[in-house]
Amino acid sequence: MLKLDFHPSGRHFLQIPGPSPVPDRILRAMSLPTIDHRGPEFGALGLELLAKVKVIFKTTQPVIIYPASGTGAWEAALINTMSTGDRVLMFETGHFATLWEKMALRLGLEPEFLGLPGYEGWRAGVQANMIEDRLRKDTGHTIKAVCVVHNETSTGVTSNIPAVRRAIDAAGHPALLLVDTISGLACADYQHDAWGVDVTISGSQKGLMLPPGISFNALSDNAIAASKTSNLPKSFWAWDEILEANKNGYWPYTPNTNLLYGLNEALDMLLEEGLEQVIARHQRWAVGVRTAVEAWGLEVQCQEPDVYSPVLTGVVMPEGVDADAVRRLIYERFDLSLGMGLGKSKGKMFRIGHLGDCNDLTLIAALGGCEAGLKLSGVNLKGSGVLAALEYFSQNRPHHVN
Amino acid sequence: MLKLDFHPSGRHFLQIPGPSPVPDRILRAMSLPTIDHRGPEFGALGLELLAKVKVIFKTTQPVIIYPASGTGAWEAALINTMSTGDRVLMFETGHFATLWEKMALRLGLEPEFLGLPGYEGWRAGVQANMIEDRLRKDTGHTIKAVCVVHNETSTGVTSNIPAVRRAIDAAGHPALLLVDTISGLACADYQHDAWGVDVTISGSQKGLMLPPGISFNALSDNAIAASKTSNLPKSFWAWDEILEANKNGYWPYTPNTNLLYGLNEALDMLLEEGLEQVIARHQRWAVGVRTAVEAWGLEVQCQEPDVYSPVLTGVVMPEGVDADAVRRLIYERFDLSLGMGLGKSKGKMFRIGHLGDCNDLTLIAALGGCEAGLKLSGVNLKGSGVLAALEYFSQNRPHHVN
Amino acid sequence: MLKLDFHPSGRHFLQIPGPSPVPDRILRAMSLPTIDHRGPEFGALGLELLAKVKVIFKTTQPVIIYPASGTGAWEAALINTMSTGDRVLMFETGHFATLWEKMALRLGLEPEFLGLPGYEGWRAGVQANMIEDRLRKDTGHTIKAVCVVHNETSTGVTSNIPAVRRAIDAAGHPALLLVDTISGLACADYQHDAWGVDVTISGSQKGLMLPPGISFNALSDNAIAASKTSNLPKSFWAWDEILEANKNGYWPYTPNTNLLYGLNEALDMLLEEGLEQVIARHQRWAVGVRTAVEAWGLEVQCQEPDVYSPVLTGVVMPEGVDADAVRRLIYERFDLSLGMGLGKSKGKMFRIGHLGDCNDLTLIAALGGCEAGLKLSGVNLKGSGVLAALEYFSQNRPHHVN
Amino acid sequence: MLKLDFHPSGRHFLQIPGPSPVPDRILRAMSLPTIDHRGPEFGALGLELLAKVKVIFKTTQPVIIYPASGTGAWEAALINTMSTGDRVLMFETGHFATLWEKMALRLGLEPEFLGLPGYEGWRAGVQANMIEDRLRKDTGHTIKAVCVVHNETSTGVTSNIPAVRRAIDAAGHPALLLVDTISGLACADYQHDAWGVDVTISGSQKGLMLPPGISFNALSDNAIAASKTSNLPKSFWAWDEILEANKNGYWPYTPNTNLLYGLNEALDMLLEEGLEQVIARHQRWAVGVRTAVEAWGLEVQCQEPDVYSPVLTGVVMPEGVDADAVRRLIYERFDLSLGMGLGKSKGKMFRIGHLGDCNDLTLIAALGGCEAGLKLSGVNLKGSGVLAALEYFSQNRPHHVN
Repeated sequence: MLKLDFHPSGRHFLQIPGPSPVPDRILRAMSLPTIDHRGPEFGALGLELLAKVKVIFKTTQPVIIYPASGTGAWEAALINTMSTGDRVLMFETGHFATLWEKMALRLGLEPEFLGLPGYEGWRAGVQANMIEDRLRKDTGHTIKAVCVVHNETSTGVTSNIPAVRRAIDAAGHPALLLVDTISGLACADYQHDAWGVDVTISGSQKGLMLPPGISFNALSDNAIAASKTSNLPKSFWAWDEILEANKNGYWPYTPNTNLLYGLNEALDMLLEEGLEQVIARHQRWAVGVRTAVEAWGLEVQCQEPDVYSPVLTGVVMPEGVDADAVRRLIYERFDLSLGMGLGKSKGKMFRIGHLGDCNDLTLIAALGGCEAGLKLSGVNLKGSGVLAALEYFSQNRPHHVN
Repeated sequence: MLKLDFHPSGRHFLQIPGPSPVPDRILRAMSLPTIDHRGPEFGALGLELLAKVKVIFKTTQPVIIYPASGTGAWEAALINTMSTGDRVLMFETGHFATLWEKMALRLGLEPEFLGLPGYEGWRAGVQANMIEDRLRKDTGHTIKAVCVVHNETSTGVTSNIPAVRRAIDAAGHPALLLVDTISGLACADYQHDAWGVDVTISGSQKGLMLPPGISFNALSDNAIAASKTSNLPKSFWAWDEILEANKNGYWPYTPNTNLLYGLNEALDMLLEEGLEQVIARHQRWAVGVRTAVEAWGLEVQCQEPDVYSPVLTGVVMPEGVDADAVRRLIYERFDLSLGMGLGKSKGKMFRIGHLGDCNDLTLIAALGGCEAGLKLSGVNLKGSGVLAALEYFSQNRPHHVN
Repeated sequence: MLKLDFHPSGRHFLQIPGPSPVPDRILRAMSLPTIDHRGPEFGALGLELLAKVKVIFKTTQPVIIYPASGTGAWEAALINTMSTGDRVLMFETGHFATLWEKMALRLGLEPEFLGLPGYEGWRAGVQANMIEDRLRKDTGHTIKAVCVVHNETSTGVTSNIPAVRRAIDAAGHPALLLVDTISGLACADYQHDAWGVDVTISGSQKGLMLPPGISFNALSDNAIAASKTSNLPKSFWAWDEILEANKNGYWPYTPNTNLLYGLNEALDMLLEEGLEQVIARHQRWAVGVRTAVEAWGLEVQCQEPDVYSPVLTGVVMPEGVDADAVRRLIYERFDLSLGMGLGKSKGKMFRIGHLGDCNDLTLIAALGGCEAGLKLSGVNLKGSGVLAALEYFSQNRPHHVN
Repeated sequence: MLKLDFHPSGRHFLQIPGPSPVPDRILRAMSLPTIDHRGPEFGALGLELLAKVKVIFKTTQPVIIYPASGTGAWEAALINTMSTGDRVLMFETGHFATLWEKMALRLGLEPEFLGLPGYEGWRAGVQANMIEDRLRKDTGHTIKAVCVVHNETSTGVTSNIPAVRRAIDAAGHPALLLVDTISGLACADYQHDAWGVDVTISGSQKGLMLPPGISFNALSDNAIAASKTSNLPKSFWAWDEILEANKNGYWPYTPNTNLLYGLNEALDMLLEEGLEQVIARHQRWAVGVRTAVEAWGLEVQCQEPDVYSPVLTGVVMPEGVDADAVRRLIYERFDLSLGMGLGKSKGKMFRIGHLGDCNDLTLIAALGGCEAGLKLSGVNLKGSGVLAALEYFSQNRPHHVN
């Protein structure tokens, strides 16, 4: 039988920056019997889902739902809009930006990877001015897309997307704007239409509080136009047939029905609470967690306060401390999962997720586990982060308490 | 639709001394389809359950399983063994002892309620010497039963049952020994056979980590003999027909099938971990929680260290502080349920449950919520309980970590 | 791990007259986390439940909800209203009437058991005229209650309760009217207030489509008045404290929380569909099943068409055929559970439940299994029952189809 | 709230040829909390899954598990092994073969579509001799792959894959053999290694009894070798990184955790029953269903008895009867979903799925619904199919009954 936790008792604390803890309501919804994906109930469900999901993206344009995990939606965005050898301008904000660039290469595109020198870019957001400069030089408009990560899950930085849009416009450049907000959606403010994004990429296992297995492309007219001339081979990811079938609430091939049940429940929960409240909730948690990191006397990975992530916080280890050894100790002793440092930050930091089905005490527990684990690992802490966060949460009421 | 939490996000922290947090494995088991309670699968399940449950009571004698919550099993124990007007010796350890006495009265028995004077008895365990003294005086053996609460859920005191047995034996008295361990079973050490208990009463919603709805009577030969002559009217609770039907794994009337699924899963979990490990786990948590209370400079309700409960800890409020107001604030701000002061202790203390599906960080979260709530309520704390407990848990490994 | 079906594949067909098949919605609702039974969410849930359940009983008077299975609610009705040695008039309609009489005896009452001679009463309903005659003779009003079974689960007879009320009134007799509709509620028409019932007894595992574990007493002013003078010892079942606590949506002792989640969902489902529609649905199924029995050339257990049960149908075996052997074969070969003949009808008949979460094809499957099993057992059938029922269902639209 | 069935009561009968009815054990497993996809429990689960799934494919070679539905695995098989403009030989057995051909075109391959003339190929299996003839003519070995559908879900034909392998070998041709057994796996006999298949494509929502959302590629050395030189752009579907990560039980990107829980449970269920028993079970059901169709006097879509599908049966309507109207009536009246005629067979036939979590009575119910619906639609039936099937099932014991 499935053994999901090696600890003998208690619920695991899943404080990685996604998959996030899934609410019981959603898990129950997902366990209802699978139905006919071509029957009338399914069509009704499909139409409802496709309408409600737009609210979350703040768009009136189509949102494609893929029965595939988030990496697939990256591929879909590129394959639908680009042609072999197309130049795409990407910006190195961390590990996921790097992986997306690697994917662009594998797909036969020519990514150009802007970024701050050395490790600096992994502690900052997208620099819109660098994008503007580069686009101004591209007088022949050989760059077909600007691809940026909104919330960089590997570092805890939430870049300023409107600034990127302004940079493109200021340069008078026709490149499409493709934005990955896999971990930003429904945690951080995100506005597909108002920000002029052409393709927004997202996934289910973060702010939507679902298990992984669903991913999204929100589109624009320009993106759809580009999809009609792009020459990359596409079938599973192709928008055209999906948009056609979606008109009646169906999909051209078998959708992953039970995860869609979960999506429906998740959308209801988010809309019941109100999207602005959801975002305020994550912001408040993020301040609490950073308050703890500061109290410990440790550095937050993100060095630009304007772009601190409301979704996760990277905690930098002092020189000589192996972040992965700290994480392992915390996992073994306290049944708490934290995110590892990825790529260039491997072993240098760990990441605390503060998203999804959490509350103040979940985070106090997580910070307690971190604090104890850091001390057991011999890290010198300036003060108690858990107490600092507790004080912050005490003094700053959440929105639902009068 | 069912709204189970008035808070917008996150899992509720259920740290009352029962119902305890139910593990997901058990909730899933309970949600399987109901089967025919007279069919072959049911008989197989029944026989398996009746065998495994004995291990938890540490008995080789029959254990009756009722499709009713714990209060019913109190009634069953009295109704099966006593006759109208029988004298029963009870001991006031707290609210539940008081309720049991009230029940005895309602059932037409003549309870005699021993106890320490005033409020003292609510902060101590059963005084076996008082029982011995009383029994020695009962030379006519008009007292038919000694009824004590093992783990007094209202105060956090776990009385010494072997001492009570010795007291009865020392007095050479034939009274039956009836013990309520509704909240003690599978948390605190309990030995039905070795301790010479005649009827052990227990319930599902505490150490067994089930929802409420199942309760138990573990029997002895003397108890069964008494049931044959007792004259209290009995039908639903009568042992005779249940024992007969149990031989084949069935019940004389419809059992509550889906809770039995959960019981089966619970028994498997406890036996997989090992009962001694389960008990050690609760003991360790209890020390951690008392360490926190001490750090706050507050008093533990129980004033006899020998009988501190491993299941829950009563936290006494300073003069002038309304414990219920503190509890309400903690609930509203931190989505944490604590047990209220009951009966004589109403408003004077609250109770932290540390049982069931918990782990160290669950308790750190709970203590964090208490600490913040106490401060927000204006209670002067000597120091940080949450840090003291964190230090205790850090320095004292749980059994499953090498 | 729990093995709930000895067959290798497919869902078991649970066509016994209760526990009935539980809808997935209810099973999912029951698997949500247990909450504090003294917290604010619980109070809100309690008030909602207590209000909605009255609609099902068609009463404006209090309905008591017990955390115990149905047999307990029988005991509760007697214990709350009767005193030791009270005479109660009962009517033998079948096995459950007999069991209730046995309970009355065990509780120290003096049941008088009316009935048709021999086996005749097991194939007919309550004979109101016999009750009237008996009550007229009881000029001293020593009879304190008339106890009848509305839907006799052992035979498939749904007695005429208004006729019993009229009989009591015609006799000018003050006896209370106690009615067991454990298996009738939410299947057959039932009107607690309009029919002048004093205590209605019901349970969760039949028309309410829940697992067993909850039972009910619906009260009247006369019943409540009687409970104040009755002298049977009572505590767990006592109405007074429950009524008091219910005012705020709570219970005096721990209710079985997760089954109450299920009850809430069940009430929503029934009220969404509409109680009249629910009853019409069961009536239509019953006609279909009896059509099949007639086509087989077998007898229906109930011999009075006026009181055919909409909940279950008893199928009488020809002489020399062991109904239990037929049932066993059907179970083993077709993964279908049928109700056995109980008491006087043991081995003579089996019972097909047509209640709860069923539809036409569930019953076609069940009738198919019966037909095949009867033939494999060597029973000579006149024609095909499954085809007759299919024809009936085809020609008679269910209410939800226009 | 999610409304999964427009009918008021009872469980929907999902007798389409996939998604198949999902057993409760699997739905419950899927609803357990999501865990860290980079943590130790996940690695252990991953290794276990990757080992057990090989048993189902009867292979010792790697099986790739995609977090995407089945159509994705088609794309993966082509993209990993082929290069732009490669010729692939496909065989028109029905709608899914046609869709796969269309995909090959969209991906820039040059499919050559063999087939019997007209509609004939939609009622027969792959003609291995036609493949052999074609390959013999391809002396330059420009054909890089032979792509066939094992179990054609649109028609109910299970082609002879060993014959195709022999045809390729007889022609001495190096083309890879790609086989779609999305709906065949774990229903029909399938032997990846013994039959010399290079890439087997499958999905979760058929014989594996899971919801849709997982798909598979089982590989061969030749397929892996081809993947190293193929030039189609690939990233999400690329085998290389997945194989590398799988060594430790992980995936290069986020897998769909909760569906993997379900997969683990499904594999346990299939292996507990025994794969040979599972296949025999489906074969027996298929004979029963075809017996019914014959009794009705209707034609089975498949006209070659050697390749009747054990998974589904296509039922051909008489001239002038709109199969979709019949299906709609059956759905509305009997809460039964049947598969529609697809592509060339649209409106001409419907499909009965007999796979997954079924038993004899499930199929009797389904055949009952079909029979009633056909009659209500005015179709003249020769006799009763439901009775014929019932007789067949009665006379032919399933393997688990002695």
